Amino acid sequence: MYNPGYYEFFCGVKTVAGHQALERIPALLKGLGARNPMIITDKGVVAVGLVDIVTEALASSMPGVVVEDDVPVDSDVETVHRIAAVYLKKGCDALIAVGGGSVMDTAKGVNIVVSEEAASLLDFSGAGALKRPLKPLVAVPTTAGTGSEVTQAAVIADPSVNRKLLFVSHFLLPNIAVLDSRMTLTLPPHLTAATAMDALTHAVEAYTCLSKNPISDAFAMEAISLISRNLLSVVQRPDDRDGRLALATAANLAGIAFSNSTVGMVHALGHSVGAVSHVPHGTCMSILLPYGLEYNMHKSGQWTGELLYPIAGEAIYAATPKEKRAEKTVSCIRAFNQALFDATGGLHSRFFREVTDRDGRPAVTREQLPDIARTALGDGSIFYNPEEMDVDDALMVMEAAWAGAPLDRSLVKTG
Amino acid sequence: MYNPGYYEFFCGVKTVAGHQALERIPALLKGLGARNPMIITDKGVVAVGLVDIVTEALASSMPGVVVEDDVPVDSDVETVHRIAAVYLKKGCDALIAVGGGSVMDTAKGVNIVVSEEAASLLDFSGAGALKRPLKPLVAVPTTAGTGSEVTQAAVIADPSVNRKLLFVSHFLLPNIAVLDSRMTLTLPPHLTAATAMDALTHAVEAYTCLSKNPISDAFAMEAISLISRNLLSVVQRPDDRDGRLALATAANLAGIAFSNSTVGMVHALGHSVGAVSHVPHGTCMSILLPYGLEYNMHKSGQWTGELLYPIAGEAIYAATPKEKRAEKTVSCIRAFNQALFDATGGLHSRFFREVTDRDGRPAVTREQLPDIARTALGDGSIFYNPEEMDVDDALMVMEAAWAGAPLDRSLVKTG
Repeated sequence: MYNPGYYEFFCGVKTVAGHQALERIPALLKGLGARNPMIITDKGVVAVGLVDIVTEALASSMPGVVVEDDVPVDSDVETVHRIAAVYLKKGCDALIAVGGGSVMDTAKGVNIVVSEEAASLLDFSGAGALKRPLKPLVAVPTTAGTGSEVTQAAVIADPSVNRKLLFVSHFLLPNIAVLDSRMTLTLPPHLTAATAMDALTHAVEAYTCLSKNPISDAFAMEAISLISRNLLSVVQRPDDRDGRLALATAANLAGIAFSNSTVGMVHALGHSVGAVSHVPHGTCMSILLPYGLEYNMHKSGQWTGELLYPIAGEAIYAATPKEKRAEKTVSCIRAFNQALFDATGGLHSRFFREVTDRDGRPAVTREQLPDIARTALGDGSIFYNPEEMDVDDALMVMEAAWAGAPLDRSLVKTG
Repeated sequence: MYNPGYYEFFCGVKTVAGHQALERIPALLKGLGARNPMIITDKGVVAVGLVDIVTEALASSMPGVVVEDDVPVDSDVETVHRIAAVYLKKGCDALIAVGGGSVMDTAKGVNIVVSEEAASLLDFSGAGALKRPLKPLVAVPTTAGTGSEVTQAAVIADPSVNRKLLFVSHFLLPNIAVLDSRMTLTLPPHLTAATAMDALTHAVEAYTCLSKNPISDAFAMEAISLISRNLLSVVQRPDDRDGRLALATAANLAGIAFSNSTVGMVHALGHSVGAVSHVPHGTCMSILLPYGLEYNMHKSGQWTGELLYPIAGEAIYAATPKEKRAEKTVSCIRAFNQALFDATGGLHSRFFREVTDRDGRPAVTREQLPDIARTALGDGSIFYNPEEMDVDDALMVMEAAWAGAPLDRSLVKTG
């Protein structure tokens, strides 16, 4: 599993970041041989005015750029085929994805169809089906969290057979990720907190799970440092442009880190809570991150302890004896969640028992926990987790994370 | 100059590193659609047995691989054209460069000629002349220093008109950098020290000069940490494979860092000492690095102070008051040079007065210093240096670096 004598690292995405980075897109596209891009986005992104910012940034050299905003919450094959037909009809030669994960995935799917002149996207599912570069793709994320602007995968649903298709290839990596502070400037504080905690979890699991390597470590360390120094202040002063750009950079770095190592049980359990209880992913990550670190501490405590430096700063790190640093890292993350809870008027959740759905009802009931535990064991993210996990272990962690009690580490079976 | 509100970052090179990373090359090339590579190297690399290690690693799936070892110390146009003709005649479909900077540059030049089916390499000099991907290029560095396996430039001489041509393009980036600890395992201690100090200087100048950004910072920090923790022990125990791999990783990270920010006056002066006095580049970097940091301290002292953490470790960092950290960083680098001097039996130089040529005579005379100072001002590396530098400033720095005295910082003009 963990092999310090071998690693691979790749990030083919160019990052362009700034307070007016969008204005660079026409020149960047020209450098890629394109001049007639199609913007793919969704109606939520349009509604908050972000697409207007993009089109205005392009207006002087690319007036009347084609905008496709009819992307559903979960991208699907039919949407991909419909948008690809528009792309071809309008003679477009590049894609600009403005949005979150579903928009990015849809743009990747469209890119496969228009570049391969494919009759059906379905012919290219799986890993390695693509053999050559696609059309230029520029990714403009509108949250600072998922890092999907630097990942080589796309998940696209095929409702006709009720399944989700996975597409994996280096050729799906966007050519350029454009991080512009204006894209996240109006994101509400509690969503800023949850998405940044998603990025923090990417970085922490990349650093503490078994596929770590020195280059992903460097990305993870810097991402954690940027989030620790900027998140709370941005939640308190949402119009802090420099802080917004720092969080966007952190999410990007964290995305590159976990794409080149892996994530672990926090993601496995989090995906499962999302599937069973429909809790937003960032909320699941915030709550589960300290539990994952506690569960694995006898295996990966040294790495967790090293993270105290970027999380708490030099003074606390130096003042904490080496053998206490892992526990201190966990308590700092819990304190961080509490500070975000306070700063958001209670909208940032600390444990699952206090998460509510849109109607104010509990989103996760205690009765759901066994189902969540079972579902988590089928998640691939477990594979590189430092410690093994069976259904009883998963349930024990979920019980604690539901109630908000620290994990009783004496109950962790050591494999 | 330094603009925290905008940055760009790109590294298109995949890094594959390990104690047996060379064995992965056939599979990696297959993934790039190639199966008949040509190895480009030089007779020095062959003589120390490194090419045999590479061909043996390839032997099971690529027996009889074409090897071209006639590359001069400074690559030139004629060599490029001659090797390109062999490549075409033998029906090769990829390049493996095994060596240092000249070998890498030659391979990049050959790749231009064979990929563009060019009558002359000269048609593609300058920046941006290439418009599309070239043939697959795998770079196998045989020192842990230059980082040329991750740079997008090549310098190739045209002796017919006595000039050096620069080629710059993203398409010149190798597809894959293969770092294998066996490639540097037999490098003598003093060359290990000098080349690693070259890498350290890349990282330190990337972090302290005016084109820094958060992503190059992350690469620089990790590179500095790896060199500080491993260089002296590798010089003392040259067969430390893990230490060798750590230094190769560091050089790679430092190369990516400075390719995405810049270097500064240490490189400007060092290039000049190389041109005028023919001192090896790594030796120049070792000697000049503390002087560059002293010269710039009133401008970039905060950044220099931050480097005390990866250079000296947490205990010294925490015990040093913030306003003293930059000076401490400089004294740690000087102490590091002294320790390397001791560990190499005096073969690692601490100041220019003690550098000798092959015949044991002084390599740098005091009379050469004005010429060195003048030449340095024409070097592009000055542009992003934190403080301005005129010929008197350059001479003052060179006088101190020649004699081995600390810089008198009261004489630095503040612009």
